[in-house]
Amino acid sequence: MSTQQTDRVAQALDSFRVELPSWGFSNTGTRFGKYLQPAAAATIEEKFSDAAQVHCVTGACPTLALHVLWDLPNGAADVPKMETLARRHGIEPGSINPNLFEEQVYKFGSFGNPDAEVRRHALQHTRDSVEIARRLNSRDVVLWFADGSNYPGTANIRQRKRWFEEHLRELHSAVGDAQRLLVEYKPFEPAFYHTDIADWGMALAFARAAGPRARVLVDTGHHYQSQNMEQIVAWLLSEDMLGGFHFNDRRYGDDDLTLGSIDP
Amino acid sequence: MSTQQTDRVAQALDSFRVELPSWGFSNTGTRFGKYLQPAAAATIEEKFSDAAQVHCVTGACPTLALHVLWDLPNGAADVPKMETLARRHGIEPGSINPNLFEEQVYKFGSFGNPDAEVRRHALQHTRDSVEIARRLNSRDVVLWFADGSNYPGTANIRQRKRWFEEHLRELHSAVGDAQRLLVEYKPFEPAFYHTDIADWGMALAFARAAGPRARVLVDTGHHYQSQNMEQIVAWLLSEDMLGGFHFNDRRYGDDDLTLGSIDP
Amino acid sequence: MSTQQTDRVAQALDSFRVELPSWGFSNTGTRFGKYLQPAAAATIEEKFSDAAQVHCVTGACPTLALHVLWDLPNGAADVPKMETLARRHGIEPGSINPNLFEEQVYKFGSFGNPDAEVRRHALQHTRDSVEIARRLNSRDVVLWFADGSNYPGTANIRQRKRWFEEHLRELHSAVGDAQRLLVEYKPFEPAFYHTDIADWGMALAFARAAGPRARVLVDTGHHYQSQNMEQIVAWLLSEDMLGGFHFNDRRYGDDDLTLGSIDP
Amino acid sequence: MSTQQTDRVAQALDSFRVELPSWGFSNTGTRFGKYLQPAAAATIEEKFSDAAQVHCVTGACPTLALHVLWDLPNGAADVPKMETLARRHGIEPGSINPNLFEEQVYKFGSFGNPDAEVRRHALQHTRDSVEIARRLNSRDVVLWFADGSNYPGTANIRQRKRWFEEHLRELHSAVGDAQRLLVEYKPFEPAFYHTDIADWGMALAFARAAGPRARVLVDTGHHYQSQNMEQIVAWLLSEDMLGGFHFNDRRYGDDDLTLGSIDP
Repeated sequence: MSTQQTDRVAQALDSFRVELPSWGFSNTGTRFGKYLQPAAAATIEEKFSDAAQVHCVTGACPTLALHVLWDLPNGAADVPKMETLARRHGIEPGSINPNLFEEQVYKFGSFGNPDAEVRRHALQHTRDSVEIARRLNSRDVVLWFADGSNYPGTANIRQRKRWFEEHLRELHSAVGDAQRLLVEYKPFEPAFYHTDIADWGMALAFARAAGPRARVLVDTGHHYQSQNMEQIVAWLLSEDMLGGFHFNDRRYGDDDLTLGSIDP
Repeated sequence: MSTQQTDRVAQALDSFRVELPSWGFSNTGTRFGKYLQPAAAATIEEKFSDAAQVHCVTGACPTLALHVLWDLPNGAADVPKMETLARRHGIEPGSINPNLFEEQVYKFGSFGNPDAEVRRHALQHTRDSVEIARRLNSRDVVLWFADGSNYPGTANIRQRKRWFEEHLRELHSAVGDAQRLLVEYKPFEPAFYHTDIADWGMALAFARAAGPRARVLVDTGHHYQSQNMEQIVAWLLSEDMLGGFHFNDRRYGDDDLTLGSIDP
Repeated sequence: MSTQQTDRVAQALDSFRVELPSWGFSNTGTRFGKYLQPAAAATIEEKFSDAAQVHCVTGACPTLALHVLWDLPNGAADVPKMETLARRHGIEPGSINPNLFEEQVYKFGSFGNPDAEVRRHALQHTRDSVEIARRLNSRDVVLWFADGSNYPGTANIRQRKRWFEEHLRELHSAVGDAQRLLVEYKPFEPAFYHTDIADWGMALAFARAAGPRARVLVDTGHHYQSQNMEQIVAWLLSEDMLGGFHFNDRRYGDDDLTLGSIDP
Repeated sequence: MSTQQTDRVAQALDSFRVELPSWGFSNTGTRFGKYLQPAAAATIEEKFSDAAQVHCVTGACPTLALHVLWDLPNGAADVPKMETLARRHGIEPGSINPNLFEEQVYKFGSFGNPDAEVRRHALQHTRDSVEIARRLNSRDVVLWFADGSNYPGTANIRQRKRWFEEHLRELHSAVGDAQRLLVEYKPFEPAFYHTDIADWGMALAFARAAGPRARVLVDTGHHYQSQNMEQIVAWLLSEDMLGGFHFNDRRYGDDDLTLGSIDP
């Protein structure tokens, strides 16, 4: 490599930023249970504090992704609290993440739910998330949908696709000029027969249906065995539709482990 | 097929029995949450009652697999209660299932834990399970181990293998003549780098190391993508080491759904 | 089901047609060799004759897919011969299949080859195929590309994507109103790092880039382990972009066995 | 690491040897065809010469694995020729590899073939290979079997297992004290329903059935998606049954590419 090329790589690395997810500091586990860690963050204050510690060491993590349901349980009313914490810890609020799977009404889906009432409820929650993002000056609202079905023949895949298109379009109309919607895909889990946004092709179609400020989010853990992720990224770049990454590991499924960390 | 062959198939089906797992009647879910069902069983009484209902309809499910931690929280002291429920509902106690993953001490394993104290604790729990099985006239104690590690280089696989051999042998010495130990295998989850009993070959080696009353249990959900399960069953039959089955579905991972049921 | 629904299913089955591939009657095998069968078809005459036999038994296979290189080695000059055989055996020529991998020039690809000369050569062969199809009154030209690379960093994926778009567009301009281009996808083999048209999303984008008479062809053997094919078909139907199917089995890779047949 | 540990690693690397396979210097390809390379070796002389070149550069490749059918088409009669070439090029003959799939008689298997005549033929070829190894002072005879079936219900898996055990035992009786039989496993290809030696557990059982001078050979390309190879190696080491490795890459299937080389 020439000095010029080396400089370019060094500059790219200098401006490289990795956003920390607030939920990454909590105790987590599998459906079989959680092994608790004494130092795990229990409150949003502790998550900001932990993020500040990581940024202090790395210099590359100035923002914290927030989860609406877990970090702002009172919705927009919690915005001032986030602003206070952000100032106190020198960490900016990052992407805003609605939750469309934890409430019991989402049993058969959110934007794809056969019940119009539930779809409206889900839409309202994502609109609230867009509003929270706007007030926090966060650019990105990240949409991960757990929607899907567990057995063949129990869901109308094409009808659900239409509902997704409609609701994404409607949500997009609330998105400001400086904002973006990121549409994430995942082949399986928690749904085990079909997932409404299963791969990059579906996420791309939905992002386009949503509108010009929607992009695709690539989670490195959300692929089939042996799938060529680099090629997907190359295609999204080529189509100017790459919105960002979630860096998770993947060996067997969506293993969702911290990349490269050490266990005991 | 000749009439003789048809008769043989019919007779085989007449004597075919499927044991129901008590935990199959409860609310379950994924790491993302549980969608609750009003009719889900909440107590061991309700599980016996539900099992009786299934047996009433099928005529093929006369026994109920019990989970020591969840169904007999007081251990052997709960045996009389099980006997009462069994009589009341006309359902016999089936296999006894210890739990070696729910307590915090099992974070780094049970029989494979580097801490001798934890290994002894796990051994005691499995010995208690054998004793419960003896008192309930249950033939089988089913051993599923969640033991494993999440990152390369964090566990000594060969040392753990020795610990497993030792503890299985010791446990086997407590097993009565009419009893059996069933050793289950699973390639991954909850551990995401290595699982100490990952496949049928490891389960077979451990069952042999345990002693003459140990066999291998095949869970139809615990295999790699595309693996030929029928061949594994043929091999275990040929080696006279097939102990039984858990019937779970599998599409992506260990999806653990009721086979063939309907969702909404 | 109501009688009306039953009737509808019966009518759908009455009009259901499966095209036979001429190459399916030949000896085939794996990279490890071919086991020869005395009754395998050796000439195009025998392939037409075998197809007629299948149609005679099934009543559902009136057409024969032709492979340009193997069945019309002289290109359009062989059209009259095909017509004669079609008349003689009562079997119509079906889809026309160019070959873009057998010549040595295709080592680094056809439409994606870095060498413009090779790309032109490939384009000419597909234009010839369109012309053959036109003269045989065949509606469909099926494009399967073996293009790809075997190691990371050896191919410019985005540049190759542009070449594909250009050449598909140019080819489409030669396609008649009653004709269609079908774009097939396949995740791997013969390329083992990246395949230029790896999944349905890429095939869809290329079919759209080609023009209004291009559609996606789904080969049931060309998917990742556990991928939900029915959902892909539902999406392509919903987008009005489903062109047809190749029915191949798949257990491990693209096993390419006759579906459901018996071996010895 | 301490200096002592560093020294130990350095010494291990100093004595590390990788055997070259003679067939690795030839033109190879997929079932779709071979792209020819002008410099590919066409004769056994050229393969020895190429191997000498690699050893000259690496200092770690002093032996050449030989393929009986391709390199010694006249069997033991070709031994003197091998000796001459070995001397001329300073490369010793390495493992001896019989071929049990290329002849038409092997359509339904070799050691597992339902036809006793074919089993005897296969046994004779492997005995000849042992004899060739003995005369060339080669320690290892590597047994890879393509045996399997393509559809459920067409092969008697348990009977084939017995035939394998018998013939391996008989073959082992011909193996000298300084020799070894290495039993290789592979989950699929060329057989697409079942392969008689599909995984390490089956290879281990067969190696034990054969006799004390049999071991398991691990081909790094012959595993299921996501299978933990390191754990298998740890188990084989622990059982003192690890015989050696074939280093092949694997991304999708048994991709069989040169590890890490560059394409264009």
